[in-house]
Amino acid sequence: MVGKVFFSVSMSLDGFVAPEGRMGEPNWTARWMELQQWIFPQRFFRENLKLGEGGQEGRENDILRETFERTGASVMGKRMFDLGEQAWPEEAPFHTPVFVVTHEKRAPWERPGGTTFHFINDGIGTALDQARRAAGDRDVRIAGGGATIVEYVNAGLIDEFSIALSPVLFGSGIRLFEGVDAGRVALEPVRAEPTQRVTHLRYAVRPR
Amino acid sequence: MVGKVFFSVSMSLDGFVAPEGRMGEPNWTARWMELQQWIFPQRFFRENLKLGEGGQEGRENDILRETFERTGASVMGKRMFDLGEQAWPEEAPFHTPVFVVTHEKRAPWERPGGTTFHFINDGIGTALDQARRAAGDRDVRIAGGGATIVEYVNAGLIDEFSIALSPVLFGSGIRLFEGVDAGRVALEPVRAEPTQRVTHLRYAVRPR
Repeated sequence: MVGKVFFSVSMSLDGFVAPEGRMGEPNWTARWMELQQWIFPQRFFRENLKLGEGGQEGRENDILRETFERTGASVMGKRMFDLGEQAWPEEAPFHTPVFVVTHEKRAPWERPGGTTFHFINDGIGTALDQARRAAGDRDVRIAGGGATIVEYVNAGLIDEFSIALSPVLFGSGIRLFEGVDAGRVALEPVRAEPTQRVTHLRYAVRPR
Repeated sequence: MVGKVFFSVSMSLDGFVAPEGRMGEPNWTARWMELQQWIFPQRFFRENLKLGEGGQEGRENDILRETFERTGASVMGKRMFDLGEQAWPEEAPFHTPVFVVTHEKRAPWERPGGTTFHFINDGIGTALDQARRAAGDRDVRIAGGGATIVEYVNAGLIDEFSIALSPVLFGSGIRLFEGVDAGRVALEPVRAEPTQRVTHLRYAVRPR
């Protein structure tokens, strides 16, 4: 049995995964938190980032936990890694191998708690191959950012889209599907589950 | 009791309400039909356009019928009217007054079956006022196109978004929310209902 390759993001109703502007600026942060608002109160999120006891339990918490548990390895772009390197706690929240697609040569970076970042210099295919091997029969998550996800979609390497559709409009920012090769994929709806604040959408990718 | 002002469209997962290109060209039509695919087999759609007996019944059919029945009057932009004038059958499918926002001066155009087009030359506010009066206690539908819908959203005149999210990617075309003033509206999810092929989303608009 071989795992799936999926991505899982929160997207605004108008298609953005990040607002306009610079990460960390007050306005950017306020919009971004609105997009991700369903995540922060959850018990699993708090546990995983060691923010302390407590938090909500219920379907949204279960969805976060399921997404974490199915993931045997992650792949991310260099920009996401650079931002995360500053933002993640020492015990990075992946607890699995993470493969970073980058031109930078760098030795594997092992963090406490089971996350090791591997820096892959020969493209998205190699990064995915290594992630698949590391994941065993669990799934590989293409963690982001948007451009990296679209590269994998356009290469026909994604099996499943998982989108938490958030009831916000950004008007501008980083679009999830910017540059997608629309002729490449056909989508089959697998799940559409509303929770308190967002709608969890899952699509299987079929070749066209 | 006063009716609501809403729009109801099919949107691709990447946010488009029409594909790139010229309406009526084979490629355009194929993409557009994919977006609207949930509608064509429905019994109500066939009845309303007098395409003959038969058709599917079930939740998707009910949703089409409910949208029709709640609508006491429609408002549309000039471009949508111009395209529709060539495409609608003689018995246009509205069966209510329709207010067309346009610079063109033209006498009301009455069609068999209860549709009368009124041409409004002094802006979206006036068109809506007249539509409200015509609708009585039923709702006013902002029929389209995308640009007209966004004008009404940005003017704070929409009470409800109704979107059938279709499992297709267009990559380019006409975006529903192009030019939306994102700071203007807050959305509250009211419904998210998957049917066979699409997800029916409904949001109430709250002032920010």
